[in-house]
Amino acid sequence: MGKHDMENFYNKDRFSQYVGIELLESSAGKIRAGMKIKKHHLNSMGTVHGAALFALADAVFAVASNSHGNIAMAINAHISFMLAVQEGVLIATGQEISLNPKLASYKVDITAEQGVLVATFQGMVYRKKETHR
Amino acid sequence: MGKHDMENFYNKDRFSQYVGIELLESSAGKIRAGMKIKKHHLNSMGTVHGAALFALADAVFAVASNSHGNIAMAINAHISFMLAVQEGVLIATGQEISLNPKLASYKVDITAEQGVLVATFQGMVYRKKETHR
Amino acid sequence: MGKHDMENFYNKDRFSQYVGIELLESSAGKIRAGMKIKKHHLNSMGTVHGAALFALADAVFAVASNSHGNIAMAINAHISFMLAVQEGVLIATGQEISLNPKLASYKVDITAEQGVLVATFQGMVYRKKETHR
Amino acid sequence: MGKHDMENFYNKDRFSQYVGIELLESSAGKIRAGMKIKKHHLNSMGTVHGAALFALADAVFAVASNSHGNIAMAINAHISFMLAVQEGVLIATGQEISLNPKLASYKVDITAEQGVLVATFQGMVYRKKETHR
Repeated sequence: MGKHDMENFYNKDRFSQYVGIELLESSAGKIRAGMKIKKHHLNSMGTVHGAALFALADAVFAVASNSHGNIAMAINAHISFMLAVQEGVLIATGQEISLNPKLASYKVDITAEQGVLVATFQGMVYRKKETHR
Repeated sequence: MGKHDMENFYNKDRFSQYVGIELLESSAGKIRAGMKIKKHHLNSMGTVHGAALFALADAVFAVASNSHGNIAMAINAHISFMLAVQEGVLIATGQEISLNPKLASYKVDITAEQGVLVATFQGMVYRKKETHR
Repeated sequence: MGKHDMENFYNKDRFSQYVGIELLESSAGKIRAGMKIKKHHLNSMGTVHGAALFALADAVFAVASNSHGNIAMAINAHISFMLAVQEGVLIATGQEISLNPKLASYKVDITAEQGVLVATFQGMVYRKKETHR
Repeated sequence: MGKHDMENFYNKDRFSQYVGIELLESSAGKIRAGMKIKKHHLNSMGTVHGAALFALADAVFAVASNSHGNIAMAINAHISFMLAVQEGVLIATGQEISLNPKLASYKVDITAEQGVLVATFQGMVYRKKETHR
């Protein structure tokens, strides 16, 4: 898919929009999204919720894995949390680490200001024969 | 913490509230939460977003891991997705699988109606010396 | 596959034999393997090596996932370590947690004497159309 | 620890020696190990066993995580398998992705000849106050 198709795909992702995630870059092979931390992103301790971090990484994972045109369904994901953050803007940057006809894997890093690592995410998809129209 | 304290803890979890997750049961050793699927939970394919499923499991994980009184910080989590669902109510049920002074592990299953398995989640926390007041 | 075929399948698993893992039970839906701890299983700290624990769980995972007849290829696995052990016999017990035509997931628990939990493992396979023989 | 101490640490790792893994490089921040594929590394399908790949990555993880002097205990690990291989030499290269007083995370890539990616591994340790003498 081209840049325009990836943006269209992302615009249909209602949960990511609801959480407040913005697609920043979607050129081939480089997907980035951002999330400005707001009150609704916080957990009981007042830091960004692990599930909000997961949502940010997952938004990038979805665009990256569907960017080849075939429908890609997430089959599993793993996230490690390095740092608790309370404010500012978080950036997720994705990278394809393997691709074959049926399966593909992606790595997403989440960083805070000055590039400090907040979380790392790795996810795998099953690639269907069906393509996005 | 008693049932009341766990409910108080959960009520401060702003992200889980925002997503629309409800704590259903919080007696010692048995934590359950529910999420009625709404439009804002869906992904670009019109099924429940992986990150919404993660959020549901994570809400249970947070209550379960903090239920002993010590502050518990998630250090990593793994989720496997078994089934795409579009509507109805999802239930997450948590279980502690190990506990030592510094670390603890939890397993959460997400099921749809009739108990069919939608996703499995496993998470680990680091337990601080500090307790919830 | 029947019990006999699963044993044949396991007997061709050279790495598991080399490590010293024994298939204890392979009736449909219940796979168990054992490993008597020997010097060559230890790590630099003198406790059972994480990779030896992984090998024990993986042996069960391989038999369980191939037991339906289709060739099953591991695509990923996750292991959590709960307890360091130094001697005795370890037992791994597997369970299928999901199965569809292309993908399946398995959970394996490793216990030491008296059933104390040493590690938990979860793995996913891609199921080929090709069957064994 | 210096290069010499890391080699000493690795030489006490009996399981890795037994599997046939060789420590190739252990300068600060760069750990590499190699495994020449032999018959005893193979699974029932005649390709390198997932647990042998895990062992190779885990050997690097152990040296890297113990290189700061404190005793580091693996608490969990995740491996994704990209490619089945049958012969040649496999190389694992490790990298520290986060480090704090209690926890640290490492990433290890396994490649075959020409640098093609065979598996990716990520592991986390708990760091004890005790140091290696």
